[in-house]
Amino acid sequence: MNMDFKRIAIIGVGLIGGSFGLALKKSRLCEKIVGIGRNKENLIKAKERGIIDEYFTDASRGVIDADLILLSTPVGKFQRILERIRGNIKKGAIVTDVGSVKLEVVKGLEPLIPEGVSFVGTHPIAGRESSGIADASAEFFAGIRCIVTPTSNTDKNALGKIISLWEAIGSKISLMTPEEHDRVFAIVSHIPHVIAYTLINTIMDLDENILQHSGPSLKDMTRIALSPTELWRDICSYNRENIIKSLNHFISHITDIKALIEKSDWDALEKEFQKAQAGRKSLGCH
Amino acid sequence: MNMDFKRIAIIGVGLIGGSFGLALKKSRLCEKIVGIGRNKENLIKAKERGIIDEYFTDASRGVIDADLILLSTPVGKFQRILERIRGNIKKGAIVTDVGSVKLEVVKGLEPLIPEGVSFVGTHPIAGRESSGIADASAEFFAGIRCIVTPTSNTDKNALGKIISLWEAIGSKISLMTPEEHDRVFAIVSHIPHVIAYTLINTIMDLDENILQHSGPSLKDMTRIALSPTELWRDICSYNRENIIKSLNHFISHITDIKALIEKSDWDALEKEFQKAQAGRKSLGCH
Repeated sequence: MNMDFKRIAIIGVGLIGGSFGLALKKSRLCEKIVGIGRNKENLIKAKERGIIDEYFTDASRGVIDADLILLSTPVGKFQRILERIRGNIKKGAIVTDVGSVKLEVVKGLEPLIPEGVSFVGTHPIAGRESSGIADASAEFFAGIRCIVTPTSNTDKNALGKIISLWEAIGSKISLMTPEEHDRVFAIVSHIPHVIAYTLINTIMDLDENILQHSGPSLKDMTRIALSPTELWRDICSYNRENIIKSLNHFISHITDIKALIEKSDWDALEKEFQKAQAGRKSLGCH
Repeated sequence: MNMDFKRIAIIGVGLIGGSFGLALKKSRLCEKIVGIGRNKENLIKAKERGIIDEYFTDASRGVIDADLILLSTPVGKFQRILERIRGNIKKGAIVTDVGSVKLEVVKGLEPLIPEGVSFVGTHPIAGRESSGIADASAEFFAGIRCIVTPTSNTDKNALGKIISLWEAIGSKISLMTPEEHDRVFAIVSHIPHVIAYTLINTIMDLDENILQHSGPSLKDMTRIALSPTELWRDICSYNRENIIKSLNHFISHITDIKALIEKSDWDALEKEFQKAQAGRKSLGCH
C-alpha cells in the first residue's frame, strides 16, 4: 500500500484511537499523526509513547491539512465535532469514524461533510472495557473484524482506501449497510452490555456483600460492565429501537426458560442448554 | 499436614476430580488415588497422566478401604452412587462432594451416610466450562475459594480435616450453611449460566448467521455457555426455588432498564451503568 495519507488527525486518543495510531506507525502508513482531545495530559502521554507526533486541544486547528480524520471519541460527540471542524477540512480528505453504532452516525455526519471531502463509516469489533491509551497497542486490530458501512453516497475511491488501510493493519473486512450493522450489533454486542450491567446491579440490589462471592464465571461474564458508561449510554440512545426489540426478544426467551424451570421440565431445559452450547462452540472453545 | 488419607477414591475423574487428584499428589497428601467412573478409556488416560494409581468402573468395589471418598460427578448422580457404595465404606472414612448446589445434596446424602462415616459438603469456586481431564492441573485450585458447608450433623474432626486438605492445595476457605450457599450462588453463578445459554439462543433464533459477527465481548460473556449441559440441568433442578427467585429479580431489573431506554431517560440509564461499573470494578479490572 502506498502512503495515501501523509497527515492523519485522530480525534479522541484513547484505546481505539491510540491503537490505530500505533498500528499505522508500525506499518509506516503515514508520515505524521496529529492527536486531538480535550485532555492535554493524555495527549502529552500519547506523544511520549510515540502514538502521536503533535497534538491540539482545538479540533478545528488540529484537522488543518489532514488527509484522513478519524473520529474515535464516544459516538455522541461526533456530530458536534464535525460541525466545529468542517470549515477547516482540506479538499480530497477522508473523514472516518469507529463508532459502535452506524445508522444515526452516518445519517448525522453525511450531510455535514463538505464538498470534495469523503466520509466512510467503520466499526472495528474489538473489546473496549478499557478506554485509556495505557492499553493501546499496534497489534490491537490484528486479526479482528472491521465492519465498513458504505451508503449510496459513499465515494468508491475513498471506500477502497479505507478498506486497504484496515487490511494493512491486520483486520478482516465485512461490508454491511448501516441499517444491517445496527440490527446485528444490537443483539451480538449492545444488549450483552446492557445485560452485563444489569446483572451486576441485580446482584448488588439483593445484597451488597454477595458480589464478593463471584467466581471466574461471573467475572468473565461481566467483564464488559467495566466499559465506559458514557459510550454505552450513547450507543443505547443511537440504536434505541433495535436495542428495545432485541431486549424484548431476550426477555421473552428468559421468561420461557424460567417457565421450564417452574414446570420442572428438565428434559426441555437441557435441550435448550444443548442448543446454546452447540452455538457457542461454533465460536471456538474459549 | 500429616497424611490423614492414605487411600482416596475419586468418583468422577473429570476436570474437578482430576485436578483434585493431581493437587493431592503434588502436595504428597495421600499414598494412593483410586479413580472411579463409567468410561474406562477416560480412566486409562487418567492413569497414564499419573492422576490416579488404579481404577474401577464399579464404584462399590472402588471405594473399599478408601479413607476419603470424593463425589465429583454431576450432582444429579450423587445420591444413586452413595446408595450403591454405602455398604462398602470403611468406618472412619470421610465422604465429601464438590457439587455446585448444596442444600438438596446435603439433605439427600446425610441420611445415607453409614454409622461411623462422616460427610462434609464443599464447593470449590472454579470455572467448569470444560468437563474433561485434558484441562486438569495440580494448580487448578490454587488461590480459588472453596465453600465448605457444614450442618449440625457434621463431625467437627472430619470438618477440620477437609478444611486442612483444601487449604493445603492452595484454596481459601469460606464456611456457609447449605441454605446460604444456595441463595448466594443462585444469583452469582447459577442464573449467570442460565442467562449465557439464553443469550446465545436468543441470537440464534433471530438469525442463525448473526452469531458469527460476535466479537470478544460476546465470547467472554458467553464462555460459560460451553459448560456441561447435564450439570447445569441438575443444578437448576436442585436449586430450583432460589433460581426462580433470582431470575424474577433479574427480569424485573432488565425490564426497568428497557423502560429507561423506551423513555429515552439517558441520565438515569447512565447512572445505572455507572453503579454497575463501580460494582464490577470492586471485583478487579479483568
